[in-house]
Amino acid sequence: MHDPTVRGFASDNYSGVHPEVLAALAAANGGHQVSYGEDEYTERLSDVMKGLFGASAESFPVFNGTGANVVSLQSLVPRWGAVVCATTAHINVDENGAPERVGGLKLLAVPTEDGKLTPELIDREAWGWGDEHRAQPLAVSLTQTTELGTRYTAEEVTAIAEHAHSLGMKVHMDGARLANAAAGLGSDVRAFTSDAGIDVLTFGGTKNGLLFGECVVALAPETAHALKYLRKMDMQLASKMRFISAQFLALLEGGLWLRSAAHANAMAQRLRSAVEGLDGVELTQPTESNGVFAILPDGVADRLRERFRFYDWDPARREVRWMCSFDTSEDDVDRFAAALREELGR
Amino acid sequence: MHDPTVRGFASDNYSGVHPEVLAALAAANGGHQVSYGEDEYTERLSDVMKGLFGASAESFPVFNGTGANVVSLQSLVPRWGAVVCATTAHINVDENGAPERVGGLKLLAVPTEDGKLTPELIDREAWGWGDEHRAQPLAVSLTQTTELGTRYTAEEVTAIAEHAHSLGMKVHMDGARLANAAAGLGSDVRAFTSDAGIDVLTFGGTKNGLLFGECVVALAPETAHALKYLRKMDMQLASKMRFISAQFLALLEGGLWLRSAAHANAMAQRLRSAVEGLDGVELTQPTESNGVFAILPDGVADRLRERFRFYDWDPARREVRWMCSFDTSEDDVDRFAAALREELGR
Amino acid sequence: MHDPTVRGFASDNYSGVHPEVLAALAAANGGHQVSYGEDEYTERLSDVMKGLFGASAESFPVFNGTGANVVSLQSLVPRWGAVVCATTAHINVDENGAPERVGGLKLLAVPTEDGKLTPELIDREAWGWGDEHRAQPLAVSLTQTTELGTRYTAEEVTAIAEHAHSLGMKVHMDGARLANAAAGLGSDVRAFTSDAGIDVLTFGGTKNGLLFGECVVALAPETAHALKYLRKMDMQLASKMRFISAQFLALLEGGLWLRSAAHANAMAQRLRSAVEGLDGVELTQPTESNGVFAILPDGVADRLRERFRFYDWDPARREVRWMCSFDTSEDDVDRFAAALREELGR
Amino acid sequence: MHDPTVRGFASDNYSGVHPEVLAALAAANGGHQVSYGEDEYTERLSDVMKGLFGASAESFPVFNGTGANVVSLQSLVPRWGAVVCATTAHINVDENGAPERVGGLKLLAVPTEDGKLTPELIDREAWGWGDEHRAQPLAVSLTQTTELGTRYTAEEVTAIAEHAHSLGMKVHMDGARLANAAAGLGSDVRAFTSDAGIDVLTFGGTKNGLLFGECVVALAPETAHALKYLRKMDMQLASKMRFISAQFLALLEGGLWLRSAAHANAMAQRLRSAVEGLDGVELTQPTESNGVFAILPDGVADRLRERFRFYDWDPARREVRWMCSFDTSEDDVDRFAAALREELGR
Repeated sequence: MHDPTVRGFASDNYSGVHPEVLAALAAANGGHQVSYGEDEYTERLSDVMKGLFGASAESFPVFNGTGANVVSLQSLVPRWGAVVCATTAHINVDENGAPERVGGLKLLAVPTEDGKLTPELIDREAWGWGDEHRAQPLAVSLTQTTELGTRYTAEEVTAIAEHAHSLGMKVHMDGARLANAAAGLGSDVRAFTSDAGIDVLTFGGTKNGLLFGECVVALAPETAHALKYLRKMDMQLASKMRFISAQFLALLEGGLWLRSAAHANAMAQRLRSAVEGLDGVELTQPTESNGVFAILPDGVADRLRERFRFYDWDPARREVRWMCSFDTSEDDVDRFAAALREELGR
Repeated sequence: MHDPTVRGFASDNYSGVHPEVLAALAAANGGHQVSYGEDEYTERLSDVMKGLFGASAESFPVFNGTGANVVSLQSLVPRWGAVVCATTAHINVDENGAPERVGGLKLLAVPTEDGKLTPELIDREAWGWGDEHRAQPLAVSLTQTTELGTRYTAEEVTAIAEHAHSLGMKVHMDGARLANAAAGLGSDVRAFTSDAGIDVLTFGGTKNGLLFGECVVALAPETAHALKYLRKMDMQLASKMRFISAQFLALLEGGLWLRSAAHANAMAQRLRSAVEGLDGVELTQPTESNGVFAILPDGVADRLRERFRFYDWDPARREVRWMCSFDTSEDDVDRFAAALREELGR
Repeated sequence: MHDPTVRGFASDNYSGVHPEVLAALAAANGGHQVSYGEDEYTERLSDVMKGLFGASAESFPVFNGTGANVVSLQSLVPRWGAVVCATTAHINVDENGAPERVGGLKLLAVPTEDGKLTPELIDREAWGWGDEHRAQPLAVSLTQTTELGTRYTAEEVTAIAEHAHSLGMKVHMDGARLANAAAGLGSDVRAFTSDAGIDVLTFGGTKNGLLFGECVVALAPETAHALKYLRKMDMQLASKMRFISAQFLALLEGGLWLRSAAHANAMAQRLRSAVEGLDGVELTQPTESNGVFAILPDGVADRLRERFRFYDWDPARREVRWMCSFDTSEDDVDRFAAALREELGR
Repeated sequence: MHDPTVRGFASDNYSGVHPEVLAALAAANGGHQVSYGEDEYTERLSDVMKGLFGASAESFPVFNGTGANVVSLQSLVPRWGAVVCATTAHINVDENGAPERVGGLKLLAVPTEDGKLTPELIDREAWGWGDEHRAQPLAVSLTQTTELGTRYTAEEVTAIAEHAHSLGMKVHMDGARLANAAAGLGSDVRAFTSDAGIDVLTFGGTKNGLLFGECVVALAPETAHALKYLRKMDMQLASKMRFISAQFLALLEGGLWLRSAAHANAMAQRLRSAVEGLDGVELTQPTESNGVFAILPDGVADRLRERFRFYDWDPARREVRWMCSFDTSEDDVDRFAAALREELGR
């Protein structure tokens, strides 16, 4: 029904399912399995996640990223809590207010240069404890990698978590693109999550080749009890959960998650290299993940978009975003870069 | 990893994915498709749903039944609205208060004999309009087929909808098992939905052989605008929506939805026939769908459960529920009935 | 602007302000006092409440009863909590769903004969812990005196609280008419509140001669921290709080609260005595507080209402409610009873 | 119990009740009046408000400002709506997230120089309609006078409302200090409210000499129906409403509201004149209302605060806020200015 040879640079969620993941879905099919997470696949996923993040990690597969974030944040703060985040955070700008409306959370958004918070930036909103007029800043939310394609190092996450904890605040990591960070940093994932002090983690699957599915991982043990109930009441509890878990097992057990993410990151680097220095092209962010951000001359983006899909990022300054995916090919990149050069030359 | 030959009678969501649906997922894979519902599969599903329910029907694929119900009900009533439902309704007892907590709805629950509302039963809670102290009864929610395995006829739905509309109330149908109703009634699905006056419908997929996915169908045109935004803010908007839509297409375009449901219904009838009249077995509800409800002698259920999974329904009176699914075989039923006879004979 | 000699039997909130309370408002006026509760009157009220309920009691003056109830219940249960209450409870039927919509609570309502819960009645809904599909029953809410004019003894409250606590549930008392209970029981108020195991209390003022104002009293120390923030976010924090506190001081320091309530109770008894046994009058509840509930012959209520205001309670069975207040006079009662006799005789 | 001769410059809600308002409370007392707003005082207030704002204005007395704002904003936007406001807006920083948590609203806050929005500033967040990922900007909230003591002219409000309406957005005015604006502008209040295109208004009373009470005024007729129910479910419906209405009548019928506000404004001007030009004192905002904002040399504020109460505004730059009230005397101002001169001279 559709042309499976067409790919673009719009979003990593335009891509489909990795063949190994699809095969895992088929293998998990047949017979009856207890619903709502009491199945064998979810049990095994629980062990795999403990292997990745430590023995106290508890896993809660959910449907999507917005759901994962809201459930996670509610598990960290009481009803009067507020969450410090970057103004560019997905929770702040792309979730139609779900954190506020469903989660009952107040977001305290801080402008950043590159989508990354620092202890100093957090301090701009981390104050006023004990004053009941102020929504109490009791959590920080980091996005790893960020919505701007940048990446926190393990040291940066650790410094933020130490600072937050010293203020009595918890730390959430929105890891919709956690794999891209892990692949890019080349270090054990624990170094910038459980070992760094993250309290609850959204481990993304959809943007890394799953059909659907994210996993909330409770790293601070005291959050797990809440997550069980929050997941259900926030409408994120899948009945046939074996199929989310089986996908994650396909991703995690053989290292596919890192291979796919490393590939997507490499494709972004290839794209960056191909366009960096072109006359009229200004790259606006470091390329530390699977996206490239650029300012183009007037009219170029629209003409280029007739051939490849991608999104504007900040139309006011003609900034665009080009995303690579697990299925982006070198040829895709090269043809795209060639098309850009053509359009620039007109 | 699991034994695909094991099946029980616990729930229609213990089953997996129908092979034709799994094949459709594979066929929809590959290449890039616009995310969040702007893909070709979702567009086609929209046409198929219009074919089923009428030209003004608008479709909103979502993740799960709880989400579908909350989104639907919010689209029908303002912030101060209340929803009349049966005390046994899934929205009242199985969703951890999501309608109240996420939807901000008040449920006005009415006891029923068989899970079915009537105009008279609705009137027990449909009063007090204009009195701001009372949550305003502005919608009715029917479950078709009900949680007790019973079924509304087209005439019954029509009478309820006419009554509700005459009172200024809207009508929601929770059709988690809509296919079982359609197959059982043997009539066009419109007869008990759009033609009967239903305003918004939850069309179930998961319990009828989908990997996951339900579809909210706006039948009253004025609800569609709201559903677009509600689906997102209620965390029910899938990024790779093509895969929900492709599953529904596999279900709907060749009649698989009715074949699967008719099979599950027939298996329930086979089970009923096999156990009806057995000494000590009291069937508590008519079998108008894919579930059989029975009271068993003390101890029988627990012994039987060592061989086949199923759930207690009302432990206080030793009532159990046996659910059939698209993949329940005649042999499954016969072996289960034989096992029951054995246990009764001890 | 209005006729201050007209009084009826509609509600104890139709009455105005007790003269001593009005005098206290004037006395608290003048000069500047710190807002939001850091004033001298609120500090003194805090001590008075500790004197009444014990040294660990913490007071939180609020605007009204609905607010007091929602704030109280939120302080007792986490986001996934449910509250067992009588179907007749004010929180269930008279607050337009505020507990659900603002509090995010699920109410599990149990039918009662007389508005009073018992351990056995609570058990009808107190089950399902650990099952995330079920809103978790984590609190009980009692109304003292009840909406039906009945009253819990200290022993009854103690038995309920012990039962609830043994199940891991907290106990809230909606004491909109707490004074009527204290006056009626003739015992120390602690006997049926703090000593009986109540965790958080709504201490009513408005229905006992205040211009406005209720006070949430945290009896279980762990709820006080939450109440500080909940009161503000639930829009119940008065800026000029000295004026709520000064009213409560006027009520509590000289025993006015008990005198006024005892008077209202006595007027209800006088009314009961005057109408009990009249042909056609069926009294439907014991008169243990300031209200009388009766079934009247067809047409009598409407004719009587042309002379005195009062409300229908259950129109389906021609049941009416007659409420007395701190300012109800013996003559009011006698004239009302005479009018009733007249109408009955027609 | 307190010293009624002590006054400071902390907040206009540190003051008490204007004597004429207190007298009105006493006059409204006695006898029974229908509760919840069906009384004679509230009926008369309704007429007075129509006289002030036009025949289609509908009045809804409520308890406090936070409640008035949340109720108002909910009446303007559907569940998915967002509200553009200044970052300094009370709804954004002083209400513990009540608009988000209780109202289910997303606030889109825009930095301003002086607390005042403009069409251009609104446009920074007024975009993205039709994109379900973005909370839909469907209302603007203005504070008049602003939290920074500045004031919108009728022309400015009109330009904003025209702009907002042209974008399909509604306009709310938080008039906690509406009287100060009306007194300052010297024009008919309609000129910058109903005639300027405001859709719903929070008319403040507490900061202008009431004991408590604000009034939501629906100017766009379609919002009145919603307000009736929202006020109750948001716990802002007073039972003895006659006492809020009687206070407003005392304020409005003889012009007291403007006299008191004009006096407070004049005291702020007197203070400004007394300190302007003092060495080390930098006035940071124009004085268009009853507050003066100033930066002081290091240490001066703390020493001055030992003699008169007032608040820091922006501690990072040693900015303080001095508020005048209906009861601030010329002598208060003169003594305060003298004290400041003394402390500056140390």
